[in-house]
Amino acid sequence: MKDKHIRSLERIVGGPSSILYKKEDLLPYDCDGFTLHKHLPKAVVFPKNTEEVSKLAKYCSDNKLPFLARGAGTGLSGGAIPLNGEVIISLTKMKKLLSIDFENRYAVVEPGFVNLKLTNLISDKGYYYAPDPSSQYCCTIGGNVAENAGGAHCLKYGVTTNHILGLEVVLPNGEIIEIGNNGIPDSLGYDLIGLLTGSEGTLGIVTKIIVRISKDPEAKQTVLAYFDSVADGSRAVADIISAGIIPVALEMMDKIAIEAVEAAAFPVGHPKDIEALLLIEVDGISAGIDEQINQILEVCKKRNVREVRAAQDEEERNKWWANRKTGFGAVGAISPDYLVQDGVIPPSKLPEVLSRINKISEQYGLRIANIFHAGDGNLHPLVLFDTRNPGEAEKALEAGSACLKVCADVGGTITGEHGVGIEKIQEMRFVFNEREIKAQTDIRDVFNPSNLLNAGKLFPE
Amino acid sequence: MKDKHIRSLERIVGGPSSILYKKEDLLPYDCDGFTLHKHLPKAVVFPKNTEEVSKLAKYCSDNKLPFLARGAGTGLSGGAIPLNGEVIISLTKMKKLLSIDFENRYAVVEPGFVNLKLTNLISDKGYYYAPDPSSQYCCTIGGNVAENAGGAHCLKYGVTTNHILGLEVVLPNGEIIEIGNNGIPDSLGYDLIGLLTGSEGTLGIVTKIIVRISKDPEAKQTVLAYFDSVADGSRAVADIISAGIIPVALEMMDKIAIEAVEAAAFPVGHPKDIEALLLIEVDGISAGIDEQINQILEVCKKRNVREVRAAQDEEERNKWWANRKTGFGAVGAISPDYLVQDGVIPPSKLPEVLSRINKISEQYGLRIANIFHAGDGNLHPLVLFDTRNPGEAEKALEAGSACLKVCADVGGTITGEHGVGIEKIQEMRFVFNEREIKAQTDIRDVFNPSNLLNAGKLFPE
Repeated sequence: MKDKHIRSLERIVGGPSSILYKKEDLLPYDCDGFTLHKHLPKAVVFPKNTEEVSKLAKYCSDNKLPFLARGAGTGLSGGAIPLNGEVIISLTKMKKLLSIDFENRYAVVEPGFVNLKLTNLISDKGYYYAPDPSSQYCCTIGGNVAENAGGAHCLKYGVTTNHILGLEVVLPNGEIIEIGNNGIPDSLGYDLIGLLTGSEGTLGIVTKIIVRISKDPEAKQTVLAYFDSVADGSRAVADIISAGIIPVALEMMDKIAIEAVEAAAFPVGHPKDIEALLLIEVDGISAGIDEQINQILEVCKKRNVREVRAAQDEEERNKWWANRKTGFGAVGAISPDYLVQDGVIPPSKLPEVLSRINKISEQYGLRIANIFHAGDGNLHPLVLFDTRNPGEAEKALEAGSACLKVCADVGGTITGEHGVGIEKIQEMRFVFNEREIKAQTDIRDVFNPSNLLNAGKLFPE
Repeated sequence: MKDKHIRSLERIVGGPSSILYKKEDLLPYDCDGFTLHKHLPKAVVFPKNTEEVSKLAKYCSDNKLPFLARGAGTGLSGGAIPLNGEVIISLTKMKKLLSIDFENRYAVVEPGFVNLKLTNLISDKGYYYAPDPSSQYCCTIGGNVAENAGGAHCLKYGVTTNHILGLEVVLPNGEIIEIGNNGIPDSLGYDLIGLLTGSEGTLGIVTKIIVRISKDPEAKQTVLAYFDSVADGSRAVADIISAGIIPVALEMMDKIAIEAVEAAAFPVGHPKDIEALLLIEVDGISAGIDEQINQILEVCKKRNVREVRAAQDEEERNKWWANRKTGFGAVGAISPDYLVQDGVIPPSKLPEVLSRINKISEQYGLRIANIFHAGDGNLHPLVLFDTRNPGEAEKALEAGSACLKVCADVGGTITGEHGVGIEKIQEMRFVFNEREIKAQTDIRDVFNPSNLLNAGKLFPE
């Protein structure tokens, strides 16, 4: 019902077309890409500009209303779930491209601007925006900043934080601060851009983003390699990296993942009996591409590859990537439910960790598919389950947590690009002790002292 | 004299050989590479391990003694100057290489470990440590972390913050925290590595550093280009970047800088009548190098280059770089004193800014040399002066500040790699308003609430 807060919020955003508050309208906002916890928000408001965001934040703070910001809702760790019946500030109406400076290589966007749209808009001029999460066709750059999103092609050029040059941020009390300058790397004072990027919506609401745009490489080429053993595939990954080649992307899929992508929208005919597949992309000056490709072919042959070859043409290259990018979603084609995990390990531990994940799968009696960024050790174990079987969702959560424990045990960490959210909040203790967590919550208190903004996320309390 | 604090500090570091407190012994510590302000410390202590650093910090905090950490003292903005008669915690005895993991590409060092020593130790295995400040033969990696040091070869691979994978930090109250894991990029929780790196010794004392080591490129080549006009040289820089070439280094020197490096230790015979010189290094797969070099030669020719060529051999390449790296010091060969500034501008503004710096030079009647990282817009105007002429040091400071104002005015910032320290503390207001400065000092208060650690640096108060 339209209580006094709803009426006040409605006034701030300029009328009833920019607010949802009826239960049936709120249902789509009860979770994000992490669907195991659902909570209804108090309301969803759609501001049109920074000023409205600032007023909304101030109103919520002054009236002790919990609130949080939401982009496209594709986050995988529950960062946008209204755990405490939050007022959701949806940034989907703030989706303008504000300016592009090709000469100095940056673009200024509003937070609701969709990731892939930027590359599409500038590709005819020979530029692209590098971070490419699998959800890039619909996820927003604001959400990418909140989660410090990665992507298949982030091995060589880095994840979101490496491509953000400036931010406009609304603090929980409504104050607006600007960080970073007009599109130049900024190393002045403390690195607040780095601090905000990946802070999972707990420090402020980003209302303007200056991103670096990159020049298309002169050439790129992709290699596809099939292995009869996961260990050989893993060793080939390590060999490529130690050969000093830095691919743009170095992706691996295991047998179950291959079964899934072949059952989904873009099958390419991968053999059903291989144990591991590598997809390796290199870029650069044309003259150097062939040499890199030859080195990669040699490495794979030394590791007993069954079949390895470069794409014949752009069409084949695109087909391979479309197949890979169906990724997690494809798992839905072979299992009613799945849980995607996101751990990072030192690359040399890959064979050991994959074998330990295999044991976890046996122990819990649940299939685990692996489809991941092998080059930087960023694993994505996908635990397959069926919620209709009583207790199986809980078992899946436990199995996922056990996978993260393995990552932490070998000196790795519990998230590479999906964030902690509510999903991995307990697993934070695999990596941080109380003192280290307190150092972080103390920082949160500076920006978000009453913890009304996105409470209950990121840190166990 | 040996008061009770000196006696207590002496006990913590294990005896009189690890502490200085007599005036004559303290004199070398009254400033760092920024020599215009001098202050005597209360004492200088030389801890041998993290535990001693922790005890020293706790002792100073408990007894309200101002303190600060110091590496090799090569900093250029005064970050290690004991403004408040600090106890200086010198980290020069903590200079061990603790471990190297070639397979996972990282090394663990103590803060007093000298930058260049790392590359020297691992080069026979084909690896190097990328950040290369001009002082790398003597500056410490701990100091590099404090200042987020850059270097001539940081254009392609990034500055210090891009190569730090983990830190052990002693907080001002003596607590020890670990940030980051065993050599993997860590995106868990807030980016404390990014926050600490470049915090100019105001948040904590780094006692262990995990750095990324990089594989040597298969090949590298350097081009030297002479221009009859600064504008043509600047435009060539912009053209190289827009051609999509990312050189490892793209350095520029103007006429006065060339005069200086030719008068210093490693002259190479640059013509005396050219207005600008570019030194451009590319690296990568051998097969791609020639193509990059040809593109660079073409660009330079289009911009009316007088002479341009690639190095004939490794020896010539090394000579060019030795000449460039004498850099700032070389200016001492042509002027009794000089002040180096450090601003950043959007690359497209280079011609405009250089011409405005020229006007500042005329206005103040002081010569200004420019020797800088043109590729990322990181300028280093060097204001030449003679302290023996009354008032000239003050004029030099004003001229330096005016150069920074120009950088800020065109949308740039006031430091690229030297830090703010005490030198540029007033100039912070060219870029930040009060609210933005407060957001940063609030963060400092989390780590350093009583502001006993390195007070009076970085932020105007």
